[in-house]
Amino acid sequence: MISYKNLNECGAFSTLKSIPRVDVTGLLNPERIGKAMVDMAVGLTYFYAAAPVDETILDCLEDLAREQQLLEKYQALLSGAIMNTGEKRMVLHHLARGKLGDGISVSGTDLRTFYEGERSKAADFARAVHEGSIRSSTGKLFKNAVQIGIGGSDLGPRAACIALERWAKAEGRQKMKAAFISNVDPDDADMVLASLDLETSLFILVSKSGTTPETLANETLVRSRLEAAGLDSSKHIVAVTSKTSPLAQNPGYLASFYIDDFIGGRYSTSSAVGGVVMSLAYGPECFEEFLDGAHAMDKAALEPALRRNAPLLDAMIGLYERDILGLPSTAVLPYTEALSRFPAHLQQLDMESNGKSVNRNGVPLAYTTGPVVFGEPGTNGQHSFYQLLHQGTDIVPLQFIGFAENQLSNDILSMGTSSRQKLIANLLAQVVAFARGKDDENSNKRFAGGRPSTMILGKRLGPAQLGALFSHFENKVMFQGFAWNINSFDQEGVQLGKVLANKVLSIMQGEKSDDAVLKAMAKTAGFLE
Amino acid sequence: MISYKNLNECGAFSTLKSIPRVDVTGLLNPERIGKAMVDMAVGLTYFYAAAPVDETILDCLEDLAREQQLLEKYQALLSGAIMNTGEKRMVLHHLARGKLGDGISVSGTDLRTFYEGERSKAADFARAVHEGSIRSSTGKLFKNAVQIGIGGSDLGPRAACIALERWAKAEGRQKMKAAFISNVDPDDADMVLASLDLETSLFILVSKSGTTPETLANETLVRSRLEAAGLDSSKHIVAVTSKTSPLAQNPGYLASFYIDDFIGGRYSTSSAVGGVVMSLAYGPECFEEFLDGAHAMDKAALEPALRRNAPLLDAMIGLYERDILGLPSTAVLPYTEALSRFPAHLQQLDMESNGKSVNRNGVPLAYTTGPVVFGEPGTNGQHSFYQLLHQGTDIVPLQFIGFAENQLSNDILSMGTSSRQKLIANLLAQVVAFARGKDDENSNKRFAGGRPSTMILGKRLGPAQLGALFSHFENKVMFQGFAWNINSFDQEGVQLGKVLANKVLSIMQGEKSDDAVLKAMAKTAGFLE
Repeated sequence: MISYKNLNECGAFSTLKSIPRVDVTGLLNPERIGKAMVDMAVGLTYFYAAAPVDETILDCLEDLAREQQLLEKYQALLSGAIMNTGEKRMVLHHLARGKLGDGISVSGTDLRTFYEGERSKAADFARAVHEGSIRSSTGKLFKNAVQIGIGGSDLGPRAACIALERWAKAEGRQKMKAAFISNVDPDDADMVLASLDLETSLFILVSKSGTTPETLANETLVRSRLEAAGLDSSKHIVAVTSKTSPLAQNPGYLASFYIDDFIGGRYSTSSAVGGVVMSLAYGPECFEEFLDGAHAMDKAALEPALRRNAPLLDAMIGLYERDILGLPSTAVLPYTEALSRFPAHLQQLDMESNGKSVNRNGVPLAYTTGPVVFGEPGTNGQHSFYQLLHQGTDIVPLQFIGFAENQLSNDILSMGTSSRQKLIANLLAQVVAFARGKDDENSNKRFAGGRPSTMILGKRLGPAQLGALFSHFENKVMFQGFAWNINSFDQEGVQLGKVLANKVLSIMQGEKSDDAVLKAMAKTAGFLE
Repeated sequence: MISYKNLNECGAFSTLKSIPRVDVTGLLNPERIGKAMVDMAVGLTYFYAAAPVDETILDCLEDLAREQQLLEKYQALLSGAIMNTGEKRMVLHHLARGKLGDGISVSGTDLRTFYEGERSKAADFARAVHEGSIRSSTGKLFKNAVQIGIGGSDLGPRAACIALERWAKAEGRQKMKAAFISNVDPDDADMVLASLDLETSLFILVSKSGTTPETLANETLVRSRLEAAGLDSSKHIVAVTSKTSPLAQNPGYLASFYIDDFIGGRYSTSSAVGGVVMSLAYGPECFEEFLDGAHAMDKAALEPALRRNAPLLDAMIGLYERDILGLPSTAVLPYTEALSRFPAHLQQLDMESNGKSVNRNGVPLAYTTGPVVFGEPGTNGQHSFYQLLHQGTDIVPLQFIGFAENQLSNDILSMGTSSRQKLIANLLAQVVAFARGKDDENSNKRFAGGRPSTMILGKRLGPAQLGALFSHFENKVMFQGFAWNINSFDQEGVQLGKVLANKVLSIMQGEKSDDAVLKAMAKTAGFLE
């Protein structure tokens, strides 16, 4: 029997508060470094030697995970429980990997079969495009796959395509070039379009509701450019949308691929939202490998023992840092250029899921929830904001990610070591530098240390490892949401801005409004005399 | 007479703590919206109607600015005082705009003349490249300007070149394509090089010391690719470095442009570090307009009245949010795709300058200094992390930036409004939504409001406006550093990681080490059996 209660009603949480905090500086010793690691899946390992938790704290975090029934809630989610309580919806992105969760159906449709069918349809479509049986309106082979979407329809798929572009090149798996248009700023679309041959470009319009204003504005812009170039726009655009949206079964699109309300935007890279563009760009097999990697991590997240379940452990360490140590932000630091936009995806995933102040039943909370998440690739970040991370007045927990091998195979020796060795040496050195610090007579050169981090290491980043990373963080965020007793699957906080933006647009168009503040804002910005 | 004391020794700071805090929700009324603005320069305006400060607090912040002698310290900095106390150096990036600060000389060299000479040299060089009197090793016209640098040699120049690319295209001012290589990850350089024709590429190697390992590794990589393509690499690379570096007057470079120790990396976009690539990409006149815009804001920052000095006011509002309201992070949200990498530049500028725990004399501080800075362009961010900003348990002050007009001129109407109107409507709506919130019977749809923001608005983003933005934030960060009594101009916090990375590299190369922790880390990562 699953029950729900707030974090501060948990006995284990009270206990946790009474356990003495530990100094990371002292924790980071060779014995612990050799032991504090968890096999994840597809060759990834999670290291927590530099996390601010000793065995006593870990035991208590395991008690807390048990008390909050995190694994039972994950199982319930997989079985189709209404975990998105606000919108009264199931949460089924795991089902989209094509392997977990049988027997969930809505109005007679088995949903795993539905997702699998859409994946298969996208795979067939991509193959037809690659083979040339589907061609541009002028009979040319398509060379570019350009996604038009925003938020979850952009960040995850974009991060994934960037992450795999070099891998695809190295492996001879690149079929088409992936590009993305998201911002309603027309300078975004204009610049992307200027860099592409329109005649050989296939656009993927992604909007679950079919009513996202930014995406529809960009569709209008793209259609006008296609038509101006003498191309039949209906032969250059496919839709990814829900079956009930105005974009569905619409003759204006070359094809349509369906999603539904049970997969939220920020969790949708495993669905057609990420699948169509990835299948077009790097082939359907690449997308399948991505799903397999995600599935392997989904399975690993079912392990009950905290010390053998990386997403669960990562979640509980994060919760400890947030609610016991009171640390308000966390940095994601991938030591690979391939993951340059992965922090932006995690920023949405985490902050949109867990940036909540009420519990799953709408009751205000008396504790902190999701942190601010930011990050840039290393070593670039070292030459930028690491100064504050090392010597600032606040402590920021760090999440490192690294790979032993390049995606492209051309490395060079300089000063006796390869660039990849330098990259990994920097990553390992940073873990130690942050944790251990360094004393110095000159206080300006003193490092207090005690700054916690965790690290995910793998051999080489390919689609399976990328899928596993997506799943790891999705499940981490889910576990934290369960522990905080919040609904990680809605985003009511984005609504007010939309409503007010429409009011400002009305005011700009000369309509009357009794909202004096909005009128004053519009006037100040020069839009109203 | 200038004197230095810590923030918590200031009478005005004690007073500030005793003044009642104000509710932003109530502050945001039409009268205040019409008044709470400051003309900046080159058409930019700073709005602070939604900042958490009333007239009483502003008066006290002005007292504090006077008590900490912020303007006198700025004047002293301009006159060549040793403001980088740790490294005992002057701080002269303002001088690089070419207009402020006469009579500062070192060893008989007038430094304004020196910076101006290097700017002029870069302008002549760029013109010769554009006219074709300087050509590739095979006699071709150069088409690409590729900067190799990291940290301040990358983030500011890259943000600036991205910000002006569309403008240059629209104005017919684009001369060459700008590209950037920064990360020591060889997958970074390999991908950039694969997208360019090497034969028509001119590389700009930027390292003040001439010893930055990442940059030298990338130089080796680029040289090996150039030579492999049968090109004479010494005809394809110029250096931007200090006169005493190993890169200076080196026959391996087509030309050298000089900088010195008085312009820190994150402040160096106005020097040859940003000037060579900007002059090559968009012409020397573009770089001059950028400097003119920066100079105009430098002058505006000399205004003593708090309410008429935007950088000073922005600095003091930020300090109030940080030290009185206790808010640990701040988001930069440009509503223009052109500024997509401007937050990454500000992240370095702010966090590397003011992420310090000791005062300018090395004495540990008892108050918080620089915040975590992060951001992404709107409206993209609205569909991502804004959920937490609106409804999360922590409050994050927001810094909006927007422009009334596009850079590229092609906009379209959709649903009755242009994309640019939608963009600005969203920006204005967000300011109101964050400040005012909205009640709702359903607590899940409730917005507490009271979330502060400021906004910089302009007509259109061109080089002068960009220069003004760079200057605004440089001077804001400088004023905050003076108020906190810290040295904003060194970065000792990046040293320890470098030292330990070299030790790990030695261990990887089989050298003996008595650092058991580093050895264990290297072993765990598979680099040591």
